Amino acid sequence: MKADILSIGTELIMGELVDTNAPYLAAHLPPMGIELQRITQAPDDLDSLVQALEQAFHRSDLILTTGGLGPTEDDLTREAIAQLLGETLHVDPQSLEGLKETFRRRGIPMPGGNVKQANLIPSARLIPNLLGTAPGWWVEKGGKIVIAMPGPPTELYPMWQTEVQPHLRLLAPETVILTRIVKTFGLAEATMNDMLLPLFHLPNASLGIYAQPQGIQLRIRVRAPSSDEAQKLVSPVEAEIRRLVGEYIWGADEQLLEEQIGKELREQGLTLATMESCTGGLLAHTITQVPGSSDYFRGGLVAYSNDIKIAWGVDPALIREHGAVSSQVAEDMARAARDRTGADLGIGTTGVAGPGELEGKPAGTVHIGLAYPGGILSFSRRYPQPRSLVKQRATTHALLELWRLLCRLRG
Amino acid sequence: MKADILSIGTELIMGELVDTNAPYLAAHLPPMGIELQRITQAPDDLDSLVQALEQAFHRSDLILTTGGLGPTEDDLTREAIAQLLGETLHVDPQSLEGLKETFRRRGIPMPGGNVKQANLIPSARLIPNLLGTAPGWWVEKGGKIVIAMPGPPTELYPMWQTEVQPHLRLLAPETVILTRIVKTFGLAEATMNDMLLPLFHLPNASLGIYAQPQGIQLRIRVRAPSSDEAQKLVSPVEAEIRRLVGEYIWGADEQLLEEQIGKELREQGLTLATMESCTGGLLAHTITQVPGSSDYFRGGLVAYSNDIKIAWGVDPALIREHGAVSSQVAEDMARAARDRTGADLGIGTTGVAGPGELEGKPAGTVHIGLAYPGGILSFSRRYPQPRSLVKQRATTHALLELWRLLCRLRG
Repeated sequence: MKADILSIGTELIMGELVDTNAPYLAAHLPPMGIELQRITQAPDDLDSLVQALEQAFHRSDLILTTGGLGPTEDDLTREAIAQLLGETLHVDPQSLEGLKETFRRRGIPMPGGNVKQANLIPSARLIPNLLGTAPGWWVEKGGKIVIAMPGPPTELYPMWQTEVQPHLRLLAPETVILTRIVKTFGLAEATMNDMLLPLFHLPNASLGIYAQPQGIQLRIRVRAPSSDEAQKLVSPVEAEIRRLVGEYIWGADEQLLEEQIGKELREQGLTLATMESCTGGLLAHTITQVPGSSDYFRGGLVAYSNDIKIAWGVDPALIREHGAVSSQVAEDMARAARDRTGADLGIGTTGVAGPGELEGKPAGTVHIGLAYPGGILSFSRRYPQPRSLVKQRATTHALLELWRLLCRLRG
Repeated sequence: MKADILSIGTELIMGELVDTNAPYLAAHLPPMGIELQRITQAPDDLDSLVQALEQAFHRSDLILTTGGLGPTEDDLTREAIAQLLGETLHVDPQSLEGLKETFRRRGIPMPGGNVKQANLIPSARLIPNLLGTAPGWWVEKGGKIVIAMPGPPTELYPMWQTEVQPHLRLLAPETVILTRIVKTFGLAEATMNDMLLPLFHLPNASLGIYAQPQGIQLRIRVRAPSSDEAQKLVSPVEAEIRRLVGEYIWGADEQLLEEQIGKELREQGLTLATMESCTGGLLAHTITQVPGSSDYFRGGLVAYSNDIKIAWGVDPALIREHGAVSSQVAEDMARAARDRTGADLGIGTTGVAGPGELEGKPAGTVHIGLAYPGGILSFSRRYPQPRSLVKQRATTHALLELWRLLCRLRG
């Protein structure tokens, strides 16, 4: 089954909003044997939407749309699908009653605009929305399926999970597309490519390679009539990759560096603490994205000024001698993070997030300290601007070095 | 001038990577009078790319592509553009020499795959890439322009800023599209829509309305021969919006809540500190995304366990009596954040990020405390899963309440 995703909203075309809905949906399709052809973002403009729908309708068996189901004047997804199929909108009485009931429960009168959310065409049935006022549409016509879902992720995710995915699965073909992602760091993309050259033209598996903030990733992709058979095609390719570049691999598939680290900390019975300056809390935030991280993450300090660094245990002599942006202070912050929290491992980050320079050191300068029972390490880098990217890169680098240390400690 | 953006990479179609390049480029086009028609993500597949390019070529005068310029087997952007235009690739000797020089400087031999990055067609000239090995392509043919840029943002952003945007500006038409975003919170989307109904069908300005994590946003969009004339069309619409819903407006255009807060703190001469549990550092991270935030952000504590909360000044009796997930503890964390850092204002967050429950309280429960010289406030909410969204919503809510407090303190 071939599919298109259409994300609807002028805010996407104006660059005001990053489309995270399409990747969310896209990631669910391959295991169902659904092959995504294209993702499109189109503005809240009826002609544009109809053209985008027509092209997708021509290309694919299934179109998933998000957005444009709101109650406002510029929400035109229903109108566009009606025009695509040459059908006429009417207000569905039962749905209107449901909407009114929702507002009654909220204790506020229903704004007039919401009536359009009860609109329907003959080929469509409504998909309930438990978390908002915009029901989805499930449309079947001419052997094709169009599924319109709301844009806000809080409404889209539950609608997809409980109302759309289970029904789509029943229609799914007897083909499985299996993807295996192998995550590495420490090798350049082209070098990796050269080392894996023989794997690029295998008859039953395709290999992709691309750069991510957390390192180079490899994608093995196969198609087979069943999961078991797909797995049998993937395994030898993955084994060959591990033989060729195994020492650079840190994870696979949806594994995140912070999850891998959490697993290692848990297995080794170690706890962790952070003292951040230039990363400003992003390191603690990333670590605590992992469910259950409270088991091993003792706590974090964001020490954004020298006096706070000193109040939280950093040696003032080191700041005087080397400046706050120095590998010496990064190491001492790592040590202080351990001391302050009783954690086994401490990470310190100090640097110049930018855009301006600090202590005569250029924006992007970053020092990372890593304290553990056996000693203290530090790492220094200079990252390109903007500020947000410096924070991101420094955080990833700190996690990579921590993961590397944990692997060494495991022996 | 009409434009299309094409983001290239199977990782986008597989949902493994969120496309942030397209919104980055999209945001730069309207001020240059360039009207974006469509954003497309297509996989690393030659037929798909050629089809996507053909459709864009048919629709627009300008095509901006990102990605697919790497040195590996599945980097096919150059091949697809060559096929689109019916031209043949050749290795450009000067460019090859430049590539070799880059690797000489790095002190490593050039991998064989990189040779393809010196490929060119007759209609294309190379765009220098100062931060990577993939030069861009500037292609002109049949009155249309195709500009191919690399995918990694660290290479794309500088290439766009220094090599592409300045040249495009020279070609830009004598039309300016001006967009004004008005950012609000506290009103439901449909209610806002009803209040602004008369503004939806103005002859010279279009109004859009959409929900964002930081509240409802309004977009005024006009087209005029000059910036001045565009501004004259926008101003009365904005004035009318401010008259109708002014009390709900917190910012405009690219302003972020954390920036607005920073400005208020600076103007009022106040400092801020945080003690986070459920937001795990995201609040400090968001505050420190603002350049110069070190002037008013004293520091942050991520107190992820009860003993650390207590060690950092939270009253153990409150935890015993109400549980760590309680408005009482949120307030006490806010107070402790002030006490520990000497800041004027303190924010505390405690809750259940999920997916599991805690202390018998369901995932998504969040309490926010806000301590200031005149007292302590708290706010409680329950957000839907997943964990990452709970952290995001709680952070935004904390910032909104802080901003609201700062407005009150300003009087």
